[in-house]
Amino acid sequence: MGKTRVCVVGYGNVGREAVVCIERAPDLELAGVVRRALCGIPPGVPAATRVEELGPVDAALLAIPSRLIPASAPSYLQRGINTVDGYDIHGRAMLSLRNDLANHARQSGRVAITGAGWDPGTDSIIRMLFSVIAPGGLTFTDFGPGMSMGHSTAASAIEGVKKALSITLPLGYGRHRRHVYVELEQGADLAEVAGNIRRDPYFKADRTEIFAVDDAAWLKVAAHGVRITRLGVSGTAQNQLLELKMRLTNPAATAQIMVAAARAAARLEPGCYVLGEIPPIDLLPSSREENIKKLV
Amino acid sequence: MGKTRVCVVGYGNVGREAVVCIERAPDLELAGVVRRALCGIPPGVPAATRVEELGPVDAALLAIPSRLIPASAPSYLQRGINTVDGYDIHGRAMLSLRNDLANHARQSGRVAITGAGWDPGTDSIIRMLFSVIAPGGLTFTDFGPGMSMGHSTAASAIEGVKKALSITLPLGYGRHRRHVYVELEQGADLAEVAGNIRRDPYFKADRTEIFAVDDAAWLKVAAHGVRITRLGVSGTAQNQLLELKMRLTNPAATAQIMVAAARAAARLEPGCYVLGEIPPIDLLPSSREENIKKLV
Repeated sequence: MGKTRVCVVGYGNVGREAVVCIERAPDLELAGVVRRALCGIPPGVPAATRVEELGPVDAALLAIPSRLIPASAPSYLQRGINTVDGYDIHGRAMLSLRNDLANHARQSGRVAITGAGWDPGTDSIIRMLFSVIAPGGLTFTDFGPGMSMGHSTAASAIEGVKKALSITLPLGYGRHRRHVYVELEQGADLAEVAGNIRRDPYFKADRTEIFAVDDAAWLKVAAHGVRITRLGVSGTAQNQLLELKMRLTNPAATAQIMVAAARAAARLEPGCYVLGEIPPIDLLPSSREENIKKLV
Repeated sequence: MGKTRVCVVGYGNVGREAVVCIERAPDLELAGVVRRALCGIPPGVPAATRVEELGPVDAALLAIPSRLIPASAPSYLQRGINTVDGYDIHGRAMLSLRNDLANHARQSGRVAITGAGWDPGTDSIIRMLFSVIAPGGLTFTDFGPGMSMGHSTAASAIEGVKKALSITLPLGYGRHRRHVYVELEQGADLAEVAGNIRRDPYFKADRTEIFAVDDAAWLKVAAHGVRITRLGVSGTAQNQLLELKMRLTNPAATAQIMVAAARAAARLEPGCYVLGEIPPIDLLPSSREENIKKLV
């Protein structure tokens, strides 16, 4: 069987890592990078402003900000290309995007996978498994300390901000504080920028402090982490304690999960899926049989 | 839609918990317990020596020793009943059972789910997800300290043993020691029993110490635990650290996972599956949409 040809849309933190992940995957081939401006892409990496220029493409990894995904994904599905995105807004917004992309995907007989990061994404699967093992109980998801890509992108989009880095600080048991480091545009007013960041949907639920920095070194953090704990009850048993902990370089982990989803997309019936709707074994290279021998 | 009617085959540690789990599940109904001898089953719980006596049954939970599963599961599949088992032998043995049950299941248009415990089972899914997030790297699974049901059952089946409890002690990084507490039959020889336990396939890979006990209180431990760690590489990023830790009452967790698999079986195409081949969301009660809103 030929390799699945994958293109990467966008060449930011996640896009750059996705190129490396695809090149290392035994069953995938890099079709190239799609980007509005082609500067900054190394000479060895095929790149184009339109996906049609990259030859046949089986799947597109949308390594672009969440707010651009609802409009971008359908255009690839209509061209007969599977899509994978890292849409990062939980709950109803995610469900509504999934249902919308499902219509587009079924119309063109293709597959869309949405929310293919680590949270939402693999963490969502962990929360599902914890509920399976201990259906009674409470689950807490504590992020950080570390860099949130979604929040950094959202803060960078605020008027007057050249670049922003949003750090998530866990207060424990599902509560967080955020510190946002911003490099301001010439003449921008910190107080006004700070107010706009605090009112943004990404930030309004959490206590958020904003700091102006001139030194871009402040903006280089890419580490993140998470701790998911469940105080659970199974059958007659109390005191079932389940915990997942990860320390991750955030864009690399996200890219790796998106690449795995591009592989799984080739194995699914037309439609749109969140990660928890996909058999986990189909996210891995090689056959189910090989993976059962090795990992089960 | 009507509730899925589930029977429990066997009424040991796992079977007893499974009855409680089924009664608490909003979408399942207890058809009853199937057991050779009907003593010890509380009056409120329907029970029979043959499954036909329990009325319509959609799924059978085989809460019986692993070595009895390969012969038992096909007889339920042939009767048109989905099966769920907690077969606990990893690797090739698991793959071969899955392929054998797949033939039986397809012939009768039913579903078998094998290895539906926490290891193999949900831990296998964790190992898969860890490989997805960080495809490079090393995973270590450390069990215990705690009671292994598979090893206790295997040791209890050795001639001269009335009852045995096998405790798994983690030495770290995938290596274990085992302590087996045995209540001997009258006139049995400890040295001979110990030799037979050490030569059993369940024990021969690990350093195993055997102790004779008269006090049955020694044999009541049901707690277990696991720690899965991955030292991983994602894309260009080293130092991706992933860890799962659980402390569980073992039979209750296992029963709960088997019950979730009985639910999932009703949502799958005919065939045999290990847990990692099933969309995790289908292990949960209520619709995919509800679970996406709540857990993704």
